Amino acid sequence: MKSFIDVAPESHFPIQNLPYGVFSRSGEDARHIGVAIGDYVLDLSAVKDLIDGPTISQHRDVFDAAVLNPLMALPKAAWTETRASLQKILSSDEAVLRDNAELRARALVPQASVTMHLPASIGDYTDFYSSREHATNLGTMFRDASNPLLPNWLHIPVGYHGRASSVIVSGQDIRRPRGQTRPKDDEPPVFGPSRLLDFELEMAFFVGQGNPLGEPIPIEKAQDHIFGMVVMNDWSARDIQKWEYVPLGPFLGKNFGTSISPWVVTMDALAPFTVPNPVQDPVPLPYLRHEDPYSFDINLSVAIAPEGKEGKVVTNSNLKHMYWTMKQQLAHHTINGCNAQPGDLLGSGTISGKTPDSYGSMIELSWRGTKEIDLGEGEVRKFLKDNDTVIMSGFCQGEGFRVGFGECRSKLLPALE
Amino acid sequence: MKSFIDVAPESHFPIQNLPYGVFSRSGEDARHIGVAIGDYVLDLSAVKDLIDGPTISQHRDVFDAAVLNPLMALPKAAWTETRASLQKILSSDEAVLRDNAELRARALVPQASVTMHLPASIGDYTDFYSSREHATNLGTMFRDASNPLLPNWLHIPVGYHGRASSVIVSGQDIRRPRGQTRPKDDEPPVFGPSRLLDFELEMAFFVGQGNPLGEPIPIEKAQDHIFGMVVMNDWSARDIQKWEYVPLGPFLGKNFGTSISPWVVTMDALAPFTVPNPVQDPVPLPYLRHEDPYSFDINLSVAIAPEGKEGKVVTNSNLKHMYWTMKQQLAHHTINGCNAQPGDLLGSGTISGKTPDSYGSMIELSWRGTKEIDLGEGEVRKFLKDNDTVIMSGFCQGEGFRVGFGECRSKLLPALE
Repeated sequence: MKSFIDVAPESHFPIQNLPYGVFSRSGEDARHIGVAIGDYVLDLSAVKDLIDGPTISQHRDVFDAAVLNPLMALPKAAWTETRASLQKILSSDEAVLRDNAELRARALVPQASVTMHLPASIGDYTDFYSSREHATNLGTMFRDASNPLLPNWLHIPVGYHGRASSVIVSGQDIRRPRGQTRPKDDEPPVFGPSRLLDFELEMAFFVGQGNPLGEPIPIEKAQDHIFGMVVMNDWSARDIQKWEYVPLGPFLGKNFGTSISPWVVTMDALAPFTVPNPVQDPVPLPYLRHEDPYSFDINLSVAIAPEGKEGKVVTNSNLKHMYWTMKQQLAHHTINGCNAQPGDLLGSGTISGKTPDSYGSMIELSWRGTKEIDLGEGEVRKFLKDNDTVIMSGFCQGEGFRVGFGECRSKLLPALE
Repeated sequence: MKSFIDVAPESHFPIQNLPYGVFSRSGEDARHIGVAIGDYVLDLSAVKDLIDGPTISQHRDVFDAAVLNPLMALPKAAWTETRASLQKILSSDEAVLRDNAELRARALVPQASVTMHLPASIGDYTDFYSSREHATNLGTMFRDASNPLLPNWLHIPVGYHGRASSVIVSGQDIRRPRGQTRPKDDEPPVFGPSRLLDFELEMAFFVGQGNPLGEPIPIEKAQDHIFGMVVMNDWSARDIQKWEYVPLGPFLGKNFGTSISPWVVTMDALAPFTVPNPVQDPVPLPYLRHEDPYSFDINLSVAIAPEGKEGKVVTNSNLKHMYWTMKQQLAHHTINGCNAQPGDLLGSGTISGKTPDSYGSMIELSWRGTKEIDLGEGEVRKFLKDNDTVIMSGFCQGEGFRVGFGECRSKLLPALE
């Protein structure tokens, strides 16, 4: 499969990918839905009449929306039909767009000239804690090295509700939060900027069709409700989190901002990169069991760029390390009748591998600040400094092409005075 | 102050109140904004031309909306002008509506004939834990009776993110959740309907104008961002919660549903019922300090009605018992830059008084199931049974009138098979 648009082998956006995003043209406020192809965005509102299929042909108005929610709300068949149509339109064998200069001029926009926005209106954002290595590392550091996992961890995909309003898109900066911490356990708490500012390397998926309140999504159907994925930086203020989090969980240590990559890679595009699920021992309860593989080989990296310097990769991880699958997460989330809605965002939790060079956060990479993370040119970190830019990225390696996520990039601004 | 509409002294909706809600007329889908007055709803879209003031006159389109968010997003001056206009329109001295039969017929709708809906589109829902007595009771039962409060509790208004999608309005039923629990600590977890289903008596406030990401709302201005209040039932599955909640907090034990009363009582209507703030020792950090009283004398009650029977009041509490004020909650929530938005809902946490007849949940009233709660006619409870209806209510007692919240009423349906 090949497009008439040139796509370099290392591009994240070949015709095999076609991730969805929301963009505006330079100097314009209007937001449109597009797919990334090579260095271009294809504006779907400009080609909607060419998108065909028994389901999607009844709902082409979704391509005029300023967010992906209406498309997400359609049955999975509509997503598959859209993808097939777009691959056809962009194919080197198909003349309809290739040979129509007027349409190309309206529909294809250089990525370098657009502003990307949040792909969806996010009703609720939930974050899981599904990497065994990450949970083990944290438990080892803060609880009990000989028994680092809490008793529930191997039985349920532990998760919690995060803040939807402060999810931002790659390219937006984030401000170092101020807050209450207690640096010394035997002294009163103090107020000031967080001193232990961290990233967390995560991925997240967007819910497609939701479920009515009171009616769970069974695990056999969970994949029909998962629209696609992004790379996510779950910014974490470790000192604020440590003081506040008992007994109700993380709050201000997290909700000052969460960055996501702008392009939503569909599960159809990721399907070729499926790998066997992790062995789960003990076997989970029946409502969490599925046999079909729903783990994915997605190479992930995080780089830190000090002000005015190049980014240095500090970790390489992979989504395949996750213990709980997205199907299990969604089935668990709704088993009590909780209603998921199109555009809900569900985070994986920090994705850490087994080796120290694959840990997904600085608190793990610096082992609670006991080791330095080398950024080269004399720069070292234990936690982030002001004006550091954190750049996350991810891709699947195909034969001669990559299905990628682009970047999730945000700069850490200094705290307010 | 008196309306030309007859209002009984025990009515919750005299001209001194005028709470906002969203309703639809019998047989119609269209939703409108109204205020409750006696047994009627005044449809604000029908009288919007009579609502006047320098700010609101520029924004009368907010009264054509199907949710309160656009009105909430206006500066506080617009709310005060609207309230003054509505009190004038409804006054016994004012002819404009009183003597216009055609307008009365269009604008005044019997409450008994309307369907109430959620008053706002809730972007994010946060729940606090701000009753010292409740936190002490839970700490005594589950942690350490000699030292029941955790170290952070007297320093920060502890809170966590809840689920916005499953907030429902009074009158909607709720289904008993199923889920994973571990009844015996030395045996594997099991799956099934929750056996320990509880209510939590809370109140909640809606955020008015929000704040940009990165810019906190200082406590001196917090009152300008608080639109009004409702009564809330934070349904809780104690057995699910107990197994899941470490280390990230409550999740499926709460997010199957949260019921709120339909009428949003404004802070202007509640202002006459302000009482001194609780003494806080230790004195909180400066960002949490305020001198102006922002505690309220609101009588609260909860009744349980078994299927086919009258409701029996099982507790009487009062919002004035809260340790942390709503100003402190909002200032804390945003101190790290977290952005609040119009229509966000912030819950108080369970409101328990000092005496056992004022506890705000069944786990406290039955003291972890060691005592029976008497409902009369031979009915007793430790936790809720299927088809029990929980009825919460609240009002402020004025001289000859009540400023009330109406009811927050939901029936507990049996779990799915």
